Amino acid sequence: MEDNTGMACDTKVDLIDELGIDFSLDTTIDMLGPPEIPSPLQGKSYSCFVSDSDRVLARVSVKNLEENLQAGTAPASFELAGPRQEIFFNPEGLKSAIVTCGGLCPGINDVIRSIVLTLHYGYGAKYIYGIRYGLRGFNPESGLSPMELTVQSVNGIHEYGGTILGSSRGPQPVDVIVDTLERLGISILFIIGGDGTFRAGAGIADEVRRRGLKISIVAVPKTIDNDIYLVSKTFGFETAVEMACQSIRCAHTEATGAPNCIGLVKVMGRYSGFIAAAATVALREVNFCLIPESDFDLDGPGGFLDALEKRLDARSHAVVVLAEGAGQKYVSGPEQGRDLSGNLKLGDIGIFMRDRIKEHFRNVNKEVFVRYIDPSYIIRSVPANVDDRLYCGNLGQNAVHAAMAGKTAMMVSYWNDRYVHVPLSAAISKRKMVNLKSRFWMSVLESTGQSSLKAS
Amino acid sequence: MEDNTGMACDTKVDLIDELGIDFSLDTTIDMLGPPEIPSPLQGKSYSCFVSDSDRVLARVSVKNLEENLQAGTAPASFELAGPRQEIFFNPEGLKSAIVTCGGLCPGINDVIRSIVLTLHYGYGAKYIYGIRYGLRGFNPESGLSPMELTVQSVNGIHEYGGTILGSSRGPQPVDVIVDTLERLGISILFIIGGDGTFRAGAGIADEVRRRGLKISIVAVPKTIDNDIYLVSKTFGFETAVEMACQSIRCAHTEATGAPNCIGLVKVMGRYSGFIAAAATVALREVNFCLIPESDFDLDGPGGFLDALEKRLDARSHAVVVLAEGAGQKYVSGPEQGRDLSGNLKLGDIGIFMRDRIKEHFRNVNKEVFVRYIDPSYIIRSVPANVDDRLYCGNLGQNAVHAAMAGKTAMMVSYWNDRYVHVPLSAAISKRKMVNLKSRFWMSVLESTGQSSLKAS
Amino acid sequence: MEDNTGMACDTKVDLIDELGIDFSLDTTIDMLGPPEIPSPLQGKSYSCFVSDSDRVLARVSVKNLEENLQAGTAPASFELAGPRQEIFFNPEGLKSAIVTCGGLCPGINDVIRSIVLTLHYGYGAKYIYGIRYGLRGFNPESGLSPMELTVQSVNGIHEYGGTILGSSRGPQPVDVIVDTLERLGISILFIIGGDGTFRAGAGIADEVRRRGLKISIVAVPKTIDNDIYLVSKTFGFETAVEMACQSIRCAHTEATGAPNCIGLVKVMGRYSGFIAAAATVALREVNFCLIPESDFDLDGPGGFLDALEKRLDARSHAVVVLAEGAGQKYVSGPEQGRDLSGNLKLGDIGIFMRDRIKEHFRNVNKEVFVRYIDPSYIIRSVPANVDDRLYCGNLGQNAVHAAMAGKTAMMVSYWNDRYVHVPLSAAISKRKMVNLKSRFWMSVLESTGQSSLKAS
Amino acid sequence: MEDNTGMACDTKVDLIDELGIDFSLDTTIDMLGPPEIPSPLQGKSYSCFVSDSDRVLARVSVKNLEENLQAGTAPASFELAGPRQEIFFNPEGLKSAIVTCGGLCPGINDVIRSIVLTLHYGYGAKYIYGIRYGLRGFNPESGLSPMELTVQSVNGIHEYGGTILGSSRGPQPVDVIVDTLERLGISILFIIGGDGTFRAGAGIADEVRRRGLKISIVAVPKTIDNDIYLVSKTFGFETAVEMACQSIRCAHTEATGAPNCIGLVKVMGRYSGFIAAAATVALREVNFCLIPESDFDLDGPGGFLDALEKRLDARSHAVVVLAEGAGQKYVSGPEQGRDLSGNLKLGDIGIFMRDRIKEHFRNVNKEVFVRYIDPSYIIRSVPANVDDRLYCGNLGQNAVHAAMAGKTAMMVSYWNDRYVHVPLSAAISKRKMVNLKSRFWMSVLESTGQSSLKAS
Repeated sequence: MEDNTGMACDTKVDLIDELGIDFSLDTTIDMLGPPEIPSPLQGKSYSCFVSDSDRVLARVSVKNLEENLQAGTAPASFELAGPRQEIFFNPEGLKSAIVTCGGLCPGINDVIRSIVLTLHYGYGAKYIYGIRYGLRGFNPESGLSPMELTVQSVNGIHEYGGTILGSSRGPQPVDVIVDTLERLGISILFIIGGDGTFRAGAGIADEVRRRGLKISIVAVPKTIDNDIYLVSKTFGFETAVEMACQSIRCAHTEATGAPNCIGLVKVMGRYSGFIAAAATVALREVNFCLIPESDFDLDGPGGFLDALEKRLDARSHAVVVLAEGAGQKYVSGPEQGRDLSGNLKLGDIGIFMRDRIKEHFRNVNKEVFVRYIDPSYIIRSVPANVDDRLYCGNLGQNAVHAAMAGKTAMMVSYWNDRYVHVPLSAAISKRKMVNLKSRFWMSVLESTGQSSLKAS
Repeated sequence: MEDNTGMACDTKVDLIDELGIDFSLDTTIDMLGPPEIPSPLQGKSYSCFVSDSDRVLARVSVKNLEENLQAGTAPASFELAGPRQEIFFNPEGLKSAIVTCGGLCPGINDVIRSIVLTLHYGYGAKYIYGIRYGLRGFNPESGLSPMELTVQSVNGIHEYGGTILGSSRGPQPVDVIVDTLERLGISILFIIGGDGTFRAGAGIADEVRRRGLKISIVAVPKTIDNDIYLVSKTFGFETAVEMACQSIRCAHTEATGAPNCIGLVKVMGRYSGFIAAAATVALREVNFCLIPESDFDLDGPGGFLDALEKRLDARSHAVVVLAEGAGQKYVSGPEQGRDLSGNLKLGDIGIFMRDRIKEHFRNVNKEVFVRYIDPSYIIRSVPANVDDRLYCGNLGQNAVHAAMAGKTAMMVSYWNDRYVHVPLSAAISKRKMVNLKSRFWMSVLESTGQSSLKAS
Repeated sequence: MEDNTGMACDTKVDLIDELGIDFSLDTTIDMLGPPEIPSPLQGKSYSCFVSDSDRVLARVSVKNLEENLQAGTAPASFELAGPRQEIFFNPEGLKSAIVTCGGLCPGINDVIRSIVLTLHYGYGAKYIYGIRYGLRGFNPESGLSPMELTVQSVNGIHEYGGTILGSSRGPQPVDVIVDTLERLGISILFIIGGDGTFRAGAGIADEVRRRGLKISIVAVPKTIDNDIYLVSKTFGFETAVEMACQSIRCAHTEATGAPNCIGLVKVMGRYSGFIAAAATVALREVNFCLIPESDFDLDGPGGFLDALEKRLDARSHAVVVLAEGAGQKYVSGPEQGRDLSGNLKLGDIGIFMRDRIKEHFRNVNKEVFVRYIDPSYIIRSVPANVDDRLYCGNLGQNAVHAAMAGKTAMMVSYWNDRYVHVPLSAAISKRKMVNLKSRFWMSVLESTGQSSLKAS
Repeated sequence: MEDNTGMACDTKVDLIDELGIDFSLDTTIDMLGPPEIPSPLQGKSYSCFVSDSDRVLARVSVKNLEENLQAGTAPASFELAGPRQEIFFNPEGLKSAIVTCGGLCPGINDVIRSIVLTLHYGYGAKYIYGIRYGLRGFNPESGLSPMELTVQSVNGIHEYGGTILGSSRGPQPVDVIVDTLERLGISILFIIGGDGTFRAGAGIADEVRRRGLKISIVAVPKTIDNDIYLVSKTFGFETAVEMACQSIRCAHTEATGAPNCIGLVKVMGRYSGFIAAAATVALREVNFCLIPESDFDLDGPGGFLDALEKRLDARSHAVVVLAEGAGQKYVSGPEQGRDLSGNLKLGDIGIFMRDRIKEHFRNVNKEVFVRYIDPSYIIRSVPANVDDRLYCGNLGQNAVHAAMAGKTAMMVSYWNDRYVHVPLSAAISKRKMVNLKSRFWMSVLESTGQSSLKAS
């Protein structure tokens, strides 16, 4: 049964409802054991605490609720994030580690800083390792020693983009990772990464359990594509859209600055076109927005090149925004291989489109100019804006609260305007994508005026 | 019964939960009559519709829900915003008006533009008046004629702060306003304003009903203070915090640039200190954050001046952020009168504090410097950032959808990550303020390290 | 004899001295005839005027002057720009035209606006045509009608990058252009363009003279490469460097964000590497700065790839900035052809270098990552910053003053901190390039620590 | 005889010509003794050197030169800045100190960093003290120990506004300062400050000479008001104008956002109104620009309030920009006293004007609104933009080159597009102010359309 019939119709709402939440998903959070140590936060006058029985409904539709009531089933819900009165780990001498994996994203350093400050000032847990360059930093063969993270060493790091720890893609043998955790005596591992990393995290948690260790694995969702399931919006996304808009604005300036000129911008978005779509709606200067979720044809009447030609004939300029994962049927194949994260390597649709557009107009004997902009690395490596900064701060704090309480194999998420705990298993069960039947996508289409772009 | 025991503990969550939603509030939306005309949006392939029976739970806590179930009461919920398949007004020849009231705020022009574009392109309703300079533009005595708003005239206005219509504070006689609406033949009035304006809007809707007219009154909540009840975050707030941070950063630079120097920044926040508090958490360079919700003493041991002196002795610089409504017990009195909006005029706590700080240190014979920054007009008159722009676009679209469907005496709001309809009566029943028992305020205190600032 | 022995040694000075001013160049400005009409500016109380006998020394070195004195030759000098008391054209009914040619550059709209405002308010000359899309707008075959430029139509255009007129590359037949000028009854043509355009402008002025017409041709130098001879700094250059720095900063973040990672940025700079060099000095985060003026080898000991490998071995990250014209020996050939401006088409050194770097490290069996950023269109299409805006305003004003006084075949320039008139013939006699013996380049080398990069 | 009759007429030129250079000024640079040590820069392949006989003409007008030739006098000239082949100080064990005095200004940290990097990498002179909080840091009574400045400690400081050393106003006893220099064994003192500081610097150099010491005193001109004589533009000025424009833009938005509304902005400019004037020309949205150099009357026909009323009657909004030193006849008196720098304390013309405007319109019974913005501390405490950053880098490098060569009692300046050495005695002989007969001021008047504002 469709979860959100008639509901999935608003720009931000859709970011959630289109997920089509799996009604039967298990949202129980694993724990290392009963939290029996009084939290050091208890001593602070301003403290307020959250209990494990505080839960947040996964769906806020009254209709969904009535369905549950009729069926006699409990509505899906998530554990509320926040500090617990009793914690699992004794902060005295406790050792934690932070690792950052995958591509860059605005705000990673803010999350690192927030984790370090909360561990130090909130719990008095002062031994914190920064694992270098992603999971490979766990592998002794890499020769990478962890760096010590202190209140001093994270001072000011949020003014810079990127990650002070370095990052990398790709897995490492789970037993090697757990060996290193054991050798370093680490009790909490904070993983800042995306779905690939979450899979690794789940594996690490399994191995930890198998060995009977007491190591908490807590993830903070990081993806510039905003495509992680059960997170309403990932950190850095707002900043990324802001930067994408800067480039698209330039593309528009270029397009109007020469006769029959096309501004073509490729942005991040491997499987989910959120950045392209959001920037399109925000600017309203885009004529074609192509994303992985929406198939299109290049050739034939009604196809993209035909529509582009009509647009140029009518207005003599055009702006095209392209998510990197769009139109992969034209550029991908098994021969492209996989990257270190195990993702299928995408063909470069940006270069391909630039060349195909040129070719098309050469064939029809029309002079056009194409200005191609690929701002990918500029978008993802800037510092976070203030709103993302606040968000990152909260994610970091809640990750620490969760870990100190002995939660594991989970990620900290933001859902229905609340911070919640989500099991890694649920988070990796599906990918968040733009719902083509949503009002968000409808806003894109209204803004561009583009048709189906399928050849008739 | 406390709504959110043990829950009100996260930075963003608190923006909502601390509202302490009134469980018994009536969330029924007034309508001018049954919507029986097919929406022009039906013809568009990408359309998706919302029904009046789609409702969003006001509270997402499972505990709250269980209380309802035990008590046999229905949980409070809001009507979901969005386009309806059937509408009330025939777009043909339909006349609408937009009025902007109260102080400036980033994004007003974005909302105006979104309303105009949605009326025009979505519904084909092309006659749109812009009322000049707030409610006074309705009064023939003002000599202000409405301006025509078209797709052309709103082109590019979102690149500028402020409002192209002009604004003003203060009421006008309700019958004069309704006379003007009748005279101009207006069927929909969009009101962009705050709680004072909402009261006026509710009065206009009453008078419209009394006269048996069919005029829809739809409000878009605007307040730079983020203090409207039942709105999780008002538009422009993110931008305002970003700008406030710019000034506070300068105050920090100044404070460290001279011996025993105090950077003192006054920001917006008449009754609710959200801007001051959010900027404090975002920057983590603030030593004292004073907001209207949190009383403090100037003198005596443990009071603000004593704490400030200790801070300077220890670190030789300090940054103080002050909401304009903080410490009013020191500067306000009946003699200050009321402003045109009917608000009690606030004494200028910024100048007062600057002078009292100087006096204090003169008395204790210590040389200090005070750098006082009042960025109020800079904060509120800049263009919206991209995220606020997206938000404003959605608010404007949903306001049009609601009005076309014949809804009235309501505001478009954002709640639990959904756009919803809220009756004006509910919206003005309470003010949103910083909950001093929330994790948001806890984050402020953690960040500043400030004590209670009450004299012992 | 070397003009600037021992002098050419400061970052900004060099922008001038390295030009190696040709001592014998003729700096006489052509005139259409004697200016005998009183300037309308005479009536304005605040006016102050410049006389043709006010001249500015081309060289400010005392040594150069002494050489002149000993040799009995007059030192080279330029006519000072500014309003003349008597003018040549009667403003009544006067028609002017503006054309913008070549690539975009921040500030073009500022120059257009300044010309329009000065013609209108300063001289009362209100008929102004904007020629569309460069010189091709003169060609009736293009079907492009000129647009009318008024005080209203240029209002706010400086907030946008690009040119409201559109631009294009490449010549048009001189007689066609002059035919159009005659047909439209234009007396003044303002040309905003680079050296290619200046050649066209000189040709137009010749043809005008041949036909015995009274049409003034006044150029405003525009080149994002800052490579026009006898202009100390071209407009938009500061803004371009600011934007280049944004990208290079991102490249640095990327480079430090992954193991053995190289941030590679290609910026504008066809024959002159000013943007690359200035950004390198400003940021001090660049390890290799490659410009057209400085030859380098890729392979062999001491070559670039060898040096890059050593850098990575030592520090595990590197930032490389590349002007588009650098290393052309590797990518250019006659087969590349010429672009519409008649420039040799450059091979894409950016893509080439990215691939050669990858290949090199694959060959030596070392894992490296390359993050390639090509921000060219972002750099050139943003609005001008405030300093460039002031500069553009002055260039536009002085262009109008010169034209009204009947000057022709000249450009308005900035030299030794004065605005001056330079004959087009002198301006196109040479190209401005980075002097490898200058302190400017020395600063680059100090900052990068790079060696000669020539294979031994 | 007037130096620049009929010449002083361009926006940037005027910044120089209006200085009315004193023809007879002595531009001889003091030296501690003959430089006889080979510079370590000699070993570097890319080095190029400047000789003391390389001089730059103070005036570039051909007419001025002819006057000299006729009179048989040598034209005034300045020593060219840059590295010398022989230096005075042995870098081995050499101790230097840097002190920053007076108000903040964008770019101070850039200058500090450049000095440290050039001393360290260029000359191998690695012992560098940072004197804390201005001259008071020399006084043992202050209890302020100098901080050690190293390549590491200045890393990244240019990303922040202000000065890492702290600053303060006011003199200290010269003999105490020189005692401290002796005690610390300092050979070079770099002073970053304004004219008050230069007077102190000249006194220190005198005392050094009297004691027969070998200590070089080299100044870097710093004033946000851009009012130091014989410097064409001071560092940070561009950034300050950029920031002032941000505030004025907001004032314009406010002014148009309410009926009969006046945006009033007070910017820096104690005796010289360069920031106000430059921002006015750059934005072209200002209706009245009031600066110290141009007297105006408040009351009476033709006075400011009369003109403002007429403007409001005509357009219903107005933007007024005010330099802090404007209109001091209304607010200053001997009772205001002097600040620590010995400057007459200025009355607060901003608050005064705000209140007088309100009073005036109350008296004539017209409702107006005044939005008063005082962005002073925001303008001066931001980081430098890229162009100022390049400028600061060059100033710092040249200051080191001068000092190492044994130059003293001088400042590094920028003049006629060259870096030069100017004796402190010449620099403090006059103040740079806006020339009311210049084209720069003419541009202001054209842009605002304001009349004389003197009561008739």
